[in-house]
Amino acid sequence: MRYELYYWASIQGRGEFVRLALEAAGAPYVDVARTAGGERRLLALLDDDAIACPPFAPPFLKAGNRLIGQTANILLFLGDRHDLAPKRDSARLWAHQLQLTIADLVDEAHDSHHPIAASLYYEDQRREAKRRAVDFIARRMPKYIGYFERVLAANPAGPAHLVGGRLSYADLSLFQVVAGLQYAFPNATARFARQHRRVMALCERVVAGQRIAAYLASGRRLPFSKEGIFRHYPELDS
Amino acid sequence: MRYELYYWASIQGRGEFVRLALEAAGAPYVDVARTAGGERRLLALLDDDAIACPPFAPPFLKAGNRLIGQTANILLFLGDRHDLAPKRDSARLWAHQLQLTIADLVDEAHDSHHPIAASLYYEDQRREAKRRAVDFIARRMPKYIGYFERVLAANPAGPAHLVGGRLSYADLSLFQVVAGLQYAFPNATARFARQHRRVMALCERVVAGQRIAAYLASGRRLPFSKEGIFRHYPELDS
Repeated sequence: MRYELYYWASIQGRGEFVRLALEAAGAPYVDVARTAGGERRLLALLDDDAIACPPFAPPFLKAGNRLIGQTANILLFLGDRHDLAPKRDSARLWAHQLQLTIADLVDEAHDSHHPIAASLYYEDQRREAKRRAVDFIARRMPKYIGYFERVLAANPAGPAHLVGGRLSYADLSLFQVVAGLQYAFPNATARFARQHRRVMALCERVVAGQRIAAYLASGRRLPFSKEGIFRHYPELDS
Repeated sequence: MRYELYYWASIQGRGEFVRLALEAAGAPYVDVARTAGGERRLLALLDDDAIACPPFAPPFLKAGNRLIGQTANILLFLGDRHDLAPKRDSARLWAHQLQLTIADLVDEAHDSHHPIAASLYYEDQRREAKRRAVDFIARRMPKYIGYFERVLAANPAGPAHLVGGRLSYADLSLFQVVAGLQYAFPNATARFARQHRRVMALCERVVAGQRIAAYLASGRRLPFSKEGIFRHYPELDS
């Protein structure tokens, strides 16, 4: 079976967390919106009142006749199917808990440049973004990344992975969010490497994985840009 | 076994979604921070570097020797244990997907009065809150509530519940978020009853449940206030 991933064609966005999991699993999938007529199919699914389990927003994943929405929920599903999370219930929920914390960080990273409304341009909320980014950089980002450093340090199986001794979707997602923060805030994240050695080592390990390395070098990996969640506006980077 | 719920003692907040599930299940629990010395125990757990699976923030739930964080994750756990979600995998994930969408709405409701930083007072971001609340009321709130109305309309088991034909934690959470929005934005939500009849009927059904009715009438239910997620500032209510 080939999965169908529905996400906006031009950005990494939240879809990228799903793409990384599919790529790490070596699972066959189509990135629907990047095929001819695909974005129209995505919009048609969002508007289809006949769907019993409609997604609220992209990304969503078609797996056979199932349609699964919400990034963390898709990863919960894929983690079970493709061995990207432990099977044991407590460790499985722990991976999911970490994913939900990453999702909170992603939301806050987005709102650092869009604190007023996603429907407005950045330029229409630049002043407010400046204020929010100051707090995000000074308080929130260090709190989150420091938390993941602490999780790695406390992992009984060692600091190589967030959950147990093997790669999980939470590792992939932490790599993605750190890469995004480094793109968006090169100055503010310059201290990362020194203060969060375990997080940085994890990111390097993810990048070195054969499938992920091949993916990142491919045309399937979209570049970061000023359209996605992580945006580089120099005036927001302290 | 008696659960220990760790959440701030004086507000409903995100902990309320867990309280409602525990109450609907008739599960024995202690609301730790509301007991003598409890808030100190909560803070001690947050700061304990020896915990292998540390929570990032309240709420978290102690179940035997497990410590489970992230509201939606706690509900996933309780749903399985207390029959507050379907057993079948696809319906179980669907309930969780809805919960994650409710969590997004909760985040946005919070940021309508705190668009710049949770660490600042409302008074220090009042102007920005006014702008964000306008967008929240005009676009986001109707989009979310309209979505849940559509989910109820499309439920093959009928519009009495979000998932299948029985009460789930998603129903409880939708009630809580609607109650919060009505408290925070009495004017803006005045049209709810007419435009979202199924959502409103669901909320009435939740409130009429014996255990939830008893809980809401008890001292265990904290009132809405200007400290929680849902806050009534008349200047933000259109």
